[in-house]
Amino acid sequence: MMARYQVIIGYDGTAFSGMQRQANADTVQGAVENALRQIGWQGSSLLAAGRTDAGVHAAGQVVAFDLDWQHPLIDLQNALNANLPPEISVRDVRQAPPEFHPRFDALSRTYEYRIITEPTRNPLRERYAWRVWPQPEHALLQTCAGLLIGEHDFAAFGTSPIEGGATIRNVYRSEWQFSGSEIRYLVCANAFLYHMVRRMVFLQVEIALGKAEIETLTAALADSAAGIIQGLAPAHGLVLLAVEYPPEVS
Amino acid sequence: MMARYQVIIGYDGTAFSGMQRQANADTVQGAVENALRQIGWQGSSLLAAGRTDAGVHAAGQVVAFDLDWQHPLIDLQNALNANLPPEISVRDVRQAPPEFHPRFDALSRTYEYRIITEPTRNPLRERYAWRVWPQPEHALLQTCAGLLIGEHDFAAFGTSPIEGGATIRNVYRSEWQFSGSEIRYLVCANAFLYHMVRRMVFLQVEIALGKAEIETLTAALADSAAGIIQGLAPAHGLVLLAVEYPPEVS
Repeated sequence: MMARYQVIIGYDGTAFSGMQRQANADTVQGAVENALRQIGWQGSSLLAAGRTDAGVHAAGQVVAFDLDWQHPLIDLQNALNANLPPEISVRDVRQAPPEFHPRFDALSRTYEYRIITEPTRNPLRERYAWRVWPQPEHALLQTCAGLLIGEHDFAAFGTSPIEGGATIRNVYRSEWQFSGSEIRYLVCANAFLYHMVRRMVFLQVEIALGKAEIETLTAALADSAAGIIQGLAPAHGLVLLAVEYPPEVS
Repeated sequence: MMARYQVIIGYDGTAFSGMQRQANADTVQGAVENALRQIGWQGSSLLAAGRTDAGVHAAGQVVAFDLDWQHPLIDLQNALNANLPPEISVRDVRQAPPEFHPRFDALSRTYEYRIITEPTRNPLRERYAWRVWPQPEHALLQTCAGLLIGEHDFAAFGTSPIEGGATIRNVYRSEWQFSGSEIRYLVCANAFLYHMVRRMVFLQVEIALGKAEIETLTAALADSAAGIIQGLAPAHGLVLLAVEYPPEVS
């Protein structure tokens, strides 16, 4: 019997042209759909919680699809993993209500951005982190992060995925964590604009390095006509950690 | 004026056919020698502290070469890094005594082997760690590690890099560190046999999973004619952390 499945996937985004399927590029969605077809799926397109840019990683991307699967859930997980490249992994599989939609039902998304602070290139750490030097001032990073919390017009930080769509978003959590030369930015919002996290990180780091004033950030939040922030933190430091749902679908 | 330089390099070994130069393969030595030639080096072969297998990583491999360099050391480091692929990084450069040899002068080498314990493939962690499941018993791992400390004939754990060479080695440090799903094995010895760390890790994990008896380990240490241990922990979990030298050359 056909049922809808909710699947959590993780991926190393280095070699992919992002999440969303494209005609002539390796995408995460394309690879997952190929794996689904290997096990008898005949749908045309899976549903996904969010697009991630080329090079962005995920620990908790959520996808959904309808499938007639007669075996235990763990067998579905194993069958998909057997047909996926090593860079993508199905981390969890569960049955969902028939109308479950990973994007429309999501309450919020949590991203992590990783930075390492070292003077010299570090091949064992830079695949999943942006190397920044000198050390950005920690207190300034934390001050900036606090200013980003709340409902704001984030037009200066990105564009809506929908042409002409709203740019107001509600940031629930925005904080930096420090551990030696490793710095992590955790941000959770109801939804994100295109490139929003990478612009948030870039501007905070610029300010914490003394290359920009904190007023640039307050002005960007206060004036939706301030113009888009020039500069993006690199994709490879960003990880989609989790997508949060209401209890009835999670 | 020609002088000898001691250089610490780190690399992501994933895409390399090991440290040592080979005719038709990408090796770390080959890449470093190419970078040296770009800045005027005319030597035929650099000196290296140790061979690492294909796929093995390093944070502290040591190489040496003679070069006529008239500028500050930091410029030499930057010039080499500018000519190296992103997977290799020169972490430190210093001038060494003219007769310094990174292999013959080394007092010891320290390796780290990383394991993650998770039931499902994890693309963001498996590039630099061996995934093991179920959880190996921590106390058994630590007991095994303790048994490996000291001077033993490690013939069961590997072969000498020299044809028919001695297989007695002195292990100074051998211990496991546990942090959530991350397990690290730290081992330091005067020198290592070919594949020695990977066989040490493999057998300890087999024992800690209940697949082998601890007597297999004690017998392998007690009887040099016990035969080689069958099985190797994968290369991608292994990192050459550091090579230690006496004060006069370090």
